[in-house]
Amino acid sequence: MRVSIASLGGAGEIGMNMYIYETDRYAVIVDCGVKFTKSDEPGVDLIIPDFSYLNTIKQKNIMLILTHAHEDHIGAVPFLIKEYADTALVCGRYTWDILHRKLKEYDLSVNQIYIDDFKTFEWGDIEITAYPISHSVHGTYAVFLKMAEEFKVMHISDYKIDAAPVTCAPFPIAEFHKLGMDKVDCLMADSTNIVKQGFTKGERSVVKGIEEVFKTSTGRIFFTTFASNTERLQTVFNCAEKYGRKVVLEGSSMIKNVDAARKHGKLHFDDSILVSRKQVEKIEENRICFIATGSQGEGASVITKISENDYSNIRVRKNDTFVFSSRIIPGNEHRIIYIINNVYANGGRVITADDLPIHVSGHASKEDALLLINLLKPKYLVPIHGEVQHLIKYKDMAKEHGMDEENILFFLAGNKLIFENGRYIETEEIESGKIYVDLNTEQLISAEGLKERKRLAINGAVVVVNSADKAENINENNIIIELIGFEIKQEYLDILKQSLIDYNQINNGEKIIKEDFKEYAENTVKKFFKKRFSKKPLINIINTKMEQ
Amino acid sequence: MRVSIASLGGAGEIGMNMYIYETDRYAVIVDCGVKFTKSDEPGVDLIIPDFSYLNTIKQKNIMLILTHAHEDHIGAVPFLIKEYADTALVCGRYTWDILHRKLKEYDLSVNQIYIDDFKTFEWGDIEITAYPISHSVHGTYAVFLKMAEEFKVMHISDYKIDAAPVTCAPFPIAEFHKLGMDKVDCLMADSTNIVKQGFTKGERSVVKGIEEVFKTSTGRIFFTTFASNTERLQTVFNCAEKYGRKVVLEGSSMIKNVDAARKHGKLHFDDSILVSRKQVEKIEENRICFIATGSQGEGASVITKISENDYSNIRVRKNDTFVFSSRIIPGNEHRIIYIINNVYANGGRVITADDLPIHVSGHASKEDALLLINLLKPKYLVPIHGEVQHLIKYKDMAKEHGMDEENILFFLAGNKLIFENGRYIETEEIESGKIYVDLNTEQLISAEGLKERKRLAINGAVVVVNSADKAENINENNIIIELIGFEIKQEYLDILKQSLIDYNQINNGEKIIKEDFKEYAENTVKKFFKKRFSKKPLINIINTKMEQ
Repeated sequence: MRVSIASLGGAGEIGMNMYIYETDRYAVIVDCGVKFTKSDEPGVDLIIPDFSYLNTIKQKNIMLILTHAHEDHIGAVPFLIKEYADTALVCGRYTWDILHRKLKEYDLSVNQIYIDDFKTFEWGDIEITAYPISHSVHGTYAVFLKMAEEFKVMHISDYKIDAAPVTCAPFPIAEFHKLGMDKVDCLMADSTNIVKQGFTKGERSVVKGIEEVFKTSTGRIFFTTFASNTERLQTVFNCAEKYGRKVVLEGSSMIKNVDAARKHGKLHFDDSILVSRKQVEKIEENRICFIATGSQGEGASVITKISENDYSNIRVRKNDTFVFSSRIIPGNEHRIIYIINNVYANGGRVITADDLPIHVSGHASKEDALLLINLLKPKYLVPIHGEVQHLIKYKDMAKEHGMDEENILFFLAGNKLIFENGRYIETEEIESGKIYVDLNTEQLISAEGLKERKRLAINGAVVVVNSADKAENINENNIIIELIGFEIKQEYLDILKQSLIDYNQINNGEKIIKEDFKEYAENTVKKFFKKRFSKKPLINIINTKMEQ
Repeated sequence: MRVSIASLGGAGEIGMNMYIYETDRYAVIVDCGVKFTKSDEPGVDLIIPDFSYLNTIKQKNIMLILTHAHEDHIGAVPFLIKEYADTALVCGRYTWDILHRKLKEYDLSVNQIYIDDFKTFEWGDIEITAYPISHSVHGTYAVFLKMAEEFKVMHISDYKIDAAPVTCAPFPIAEFHKLGMDKVDCLMADSTNIVKQGFTKGERSVVKGIEEVFKTSTGRIFFTTFASNTERLQTVFNCAEKYGRKVVLEGSSMIKNVDAARKHGKLHFDDSILVSRKQVEKIEENRICFIATGSQGEGASVITKISENDYSNIRVRKNDTFVFSSRIIPGNEHRIIYIINNVYANGGRVITADDLPIHVSGHASKEDALLLINLLKPKYLVPIHGEVQHLIKYKDMAKEHGMDEENILFFLAGNKLIFENGRYIETEEIESGKIYVDLNTEQLISAEGLKERKRLAINGAVVVVNSADKAENINENNIIIELIGFEIKQEYLDILKQSLIDYNQINNGEKIIKEDFKEYAENTVKKFFKKRFSKKPLINIINTKMEQ
């Protein structure tokens, strides 16, 4: 009996989680997430996995199960559904509530089935049980798969072992221990925080820090965190109530998430605590708490705009307190710094997790990871959900704590692990990659396409228009050179133009040029900028009349 | 008697330090630095201050004094000298050694005079004394100015109070105390690390951590730090000698800085310890230490290239140890993470200051800053060299420790503080700004120009070529649309083309269009992309025949 586990994203990188569990005739995809672009990837908004591999398993019955509602696990679902409309989709109620709004925006419908806590269901010869676990968004599940009646895998992506969270499920330690008593073949587990010592702190540990913010703030509070972290929001609502502040929600994803969580009974507050942006004008400053999007300093986010005094009528005032109850995702530091300075420049102050204990991670640290191994006692361990360094450090740690080195498998996106009769046989390469999405034009862009964009961003472009009717008539009146995004001195432009005009000597006298004008012009422009300016602009040659 | 202190950069931002001290007829500029661009500022390499203000004080005798050899203090000197060739330049010997190589590259010469430790010299009615101080590059000075015989200012940009550095000067505590006994009017001081508690650790405190790296590394060591930190390099050379490793230097700025420091007797090692990239092939792995550039993960740096297995013959091997003895400048995190993952993927390991105490800052923490105030007892304090948040936090700290709030002046680039008879009178606004430099084309780019570049990077460009001879002859054969950097579906392109062709109906029948074709086409393209794609591409309309 042969089963396999493949990754199209998430192993060896942060984001874009997508794993595929296969038996002969059935396939279960776990998660389908996006990765966010960095500031040196201009003009694209999202990165999604290349789904091509799915074409090679079209004959199988394919199901998609989603572990939780974070974008790096559900963000690419609309793109998958567009291509593979008949994929069955299984997820928890809260996740569906978030996802179905997204599918609606894309005008997509899907065949959806709910997960029930601890309940087992079958997808052909794959038995699946969903375990509710603790993370930083509620409705998070670990997925336990029994493949072809014998190979048992625990897929636990984002988790931490929190015994008493605020609204999330406590980690089901007893149930995991029970599974461990009955032989688990393979554990696929989150490695992203593996370098952090100890256990990750529980969500309740931020309550005191947030209370401290409310106690010491003499003006308005502007609170930001990940909109999906409804446990954090519960603490903020509790504090607002306790310290007599009204709450204004700002930012569409904040409003959407609060609504979804409340609807599912996972966020509790009295209607009377909410006020609108308008009503707030009449309330004393020390009775106000905004909860807004922008914890990563995103350019268009509410917190950024407020800090720029560019959000509705809201201006930063003396004594305002801005609170970042979040970690900074690497690469976003200068955006947050920008906001902090804007706030200080206007007389406010900023509190981050560096100042007070107002944030904890949702991911397992070293001791969580060790406890998980001790509970499940898996034969094989496959670190996932982490960069290469995290996968390797997880491997080293597990080895140090007694696991057989050969049973800890190093596995990246584009790899497929093959198991036969419960034993690991080999790793195959499968088609995989990144697709860049421009949300404005809805175009999918390849890695090659992104490279061109980066070249454009850094080097600019050169356009040459040739309106001569034939080569020998090319002269200074019918050659136009336009530089886009940069400038050079006129004298250099004149030199370049003359080199282009020289083409009219083609096959005339001593000058033999075998290229047609487009080729000739492209090579000439390319060489000119490389030699004189070490620059590689994009080049676009347009003939309006000449055929070649 | 009236004196003034202005900033053209460095107050309210990190980088681009430039301050101007003026009496009636004399002006002393302290420092002239650059700021580095961020990854969302594509196509530009450096940011320099806008020097326009200097035109308004042309009639004064202008001198430039440089405190130390870091780029954020000397990097813009060539651009200043290009415009103001007769500026006198005063700096220390080590700084000059670094700077004169840079001026040579630009083919510039300058009238240069050396600083001597604790010596006073005159520039008209300004008396200047240079105090050697401790920082992270040797040859760093604080500048004490006695202006118009009565107003005494200490300008101390980058410093920490290090009593026993490795090769830098120890901080001259006694001399500062003496100055403080004799009334200092104004202290201009570094605020960048003001939020850090305690004293900044001395440079010697990294010795143990670096020794630990040498003791525990079983393969080759690749060590990176700021090339200008020759104290750090001394420690690495000492360890290499102690633990029997040969050193290979890689990266031109590393080679240049080691050479300069050694020439000035500030870096000591035996010639026999150095080997070339070639010789190293014959040496055992645990006898090798590379010292290379790339501590910020710069794309073209040696460490990045090695991690990509794209540097000469050097490939990352199992057991290699890469050492980052540096802090990460915000915004560079993902570049370092990229290197770390490359190294792990190839079987090596990475040690950063998070793993071992192998880095200390060169900037004053809270206690250094307090001690400085206690030593000098200035009447006025002006926090400089920091973001807005740092300036304000310094102000708050000094207030908390007993300084009069009204004597702590908040001052940004573009501000000029006016003092009369020793008293602060008012702050004036002066012309200031940022100029972006494209080093390839040697063009200076305005903030507006950079905005266009960003727009190009994110939105791409649209070029329309119209080769009709007159408006009524415009048809589908003489309109060409080219998209640069992005794509849309052909059907949309067809719609856009038809809207452009519609111009042939100008003033014909019912259609009255007052714009000329260029205007019309630009507006049409703009509206089209805004409405359909929420996109703002750069637009370039080219008529090859039509006059308008």
